[in-house]
Amino acid sequence: MNNVFITLVNPSHPGNIGAVARAMKNMSLQSLRLVKPQRALTEEAFARAAGADDILDAAERFETLSQAIADCQLVIGTSARVAVPDVFNIPMRAAASITHAASLAGQKIAILFGREHAGLTNEELAVCHYHAYIPSNPQFSSLNLAAATQIMCYELFLLTEQPMFVSEQTAEYADQEEIARLFAHARQTLEALHFYDPTNPRRLFPKLRALFNRTRLLKSEVAILRGILTAVDACEKPIY
Amino acid sequence: MNNVFITLVNPSHPGNIGAVARAMKNMSLQSLRLVKPQRALTEEAFARAAGADDILDAAERFETLSQAIADCQLVIGTSARVAVPDVFNIPMRAAASITHAASLAGQKIAILFGREHAGLTNEELAVCHYHAYIPSNPQFSSLNLAAATQIMCYELFLLTEQPMFVSEQTAEYADQEEIARLFAHARQTLEALHFYDPTNPRRLFPKLRALFNRTRLLKSEVAILRGILTAVDACEKPIY
Repeated sequence: MNNVFITLVNPSHPGNIGAVARAMKNMSLQSLRLVKPQRALTEEAFARAAGADDILDAAERFETLSQAIADCQLVIGTSARVAVPDVFNIPMRAAASITHAASLAGQKIAILFGREHAGLTNEELAVCHYHAYIPSNPQFSSLNLAAATQIMCYELFLLTEQPMFVSEQTAEYADQEEIARLFAHARQTLEALHFYDPTNPRRLFPKLRALFNRTRLLKSEVAILRGILTAVDACEKPIY
Repeated sequence: MNNVFITLVNPSHPGNIGAVARAMKNMSLQSLRLVKPQRALTEEAFARAAGADDILDAAERFETLSQAIADCQLVIGTSARVAVPDVFNIPMRAAASITHAASLAGQKIAILFGREHAGLTNEELAVCHYHAYIPSNPQFSSLNLAAATQIMCYELFLLTEQPMFVSEQTAEYADQEEIARLFAHARQTLEALHFYDPTNPRRLFPKLRALFNRTRLLKSEVAILRGILTAVDACEKPIY
């Protein structure tokens, strides 16, 4: 499963990064991505990696989250168990099943873990197809970063001998760069249509983003939607 | 499940004991037993407990393993996945099911975790009813003590509740009549736009239907999409 990227966003403790590397290697995962870690890797990081130095050494570093997920077809954000009505909010075990199936189908998958104290921001969560939570004590629900990663990697490892979701075998999902271009196009078209007013955005794009994140657009579907936008672009817009 | 005793045998790192307390509390377990820890609890133990001080403070201490398990009807020892012919050697998830059932029946259960570097001795394993292993990378199978405990506590927690998809509880999904009206509207608009030709339908609508079926549209999203269609309806269409 070297197409599954455990992606730490802005982690503050090098020791935790080491412990994450160990948890990954214990479960046969290899690909670690770091988005702007707050500190360089220290001796403590390597001590807590306990032999998973290869994973730390090979970790890819990115300045921004969008760079880190640009080549991924599936993005899963881990977050507390909050009711957000317009996203799929699922337990970790289900997220592992989906990730596993996507991985077998050759997709690239980023699993995002946020800052130790603050998690992922709303803006970061907005790019995710799924929000995954770890069922836990509602009075004491914040897990250590490496402990949370350990659970996800463990769930993934357990699945390595399971049959795959048939739909994942054939679907050609769009990557995040194609999705970004689609949304840039939609923004222009809807603005020309006077449906979208950048001075008064009213959460239109976060809502559309959530809608299309849930569907996980195929490449062919991005082409259809852009075709519709282009057809609309060719129209004479009414003047208000 | 305060009749399930997470029992650390001769642990060497106070930091790990703190992290175990946190992992337990995250998963609503409370009863920690310590068999002859090699060092007293330090500040690091409380730092890594991250608020699970109550579990550390209430931890019971024993001089020997036999004293620690004297009142237990079921003893599960965690150990690497080795073929030991005359014991039950089972994965952690199965051990959690057995523990949960025994707990519901009012039994007292000890789950033993061994030393950081050496695990449990053969003598200690010999008193266990089950040997439980965590499936892992055969080339790198030694988990951090707190990480291993986290997995067991997580598996136990999952058995105490049916984790429900949070999104299903709050989302107001559109009904099929609303969806049918949306598609009828889209058909008119796309036809006026010359994007859709009913005499040569080219599977456009089956494809759009599949796309929006995957996303499971909310009522509020149907309203947005119909708003966009209405804005397009107001445009002057080019003539070909």
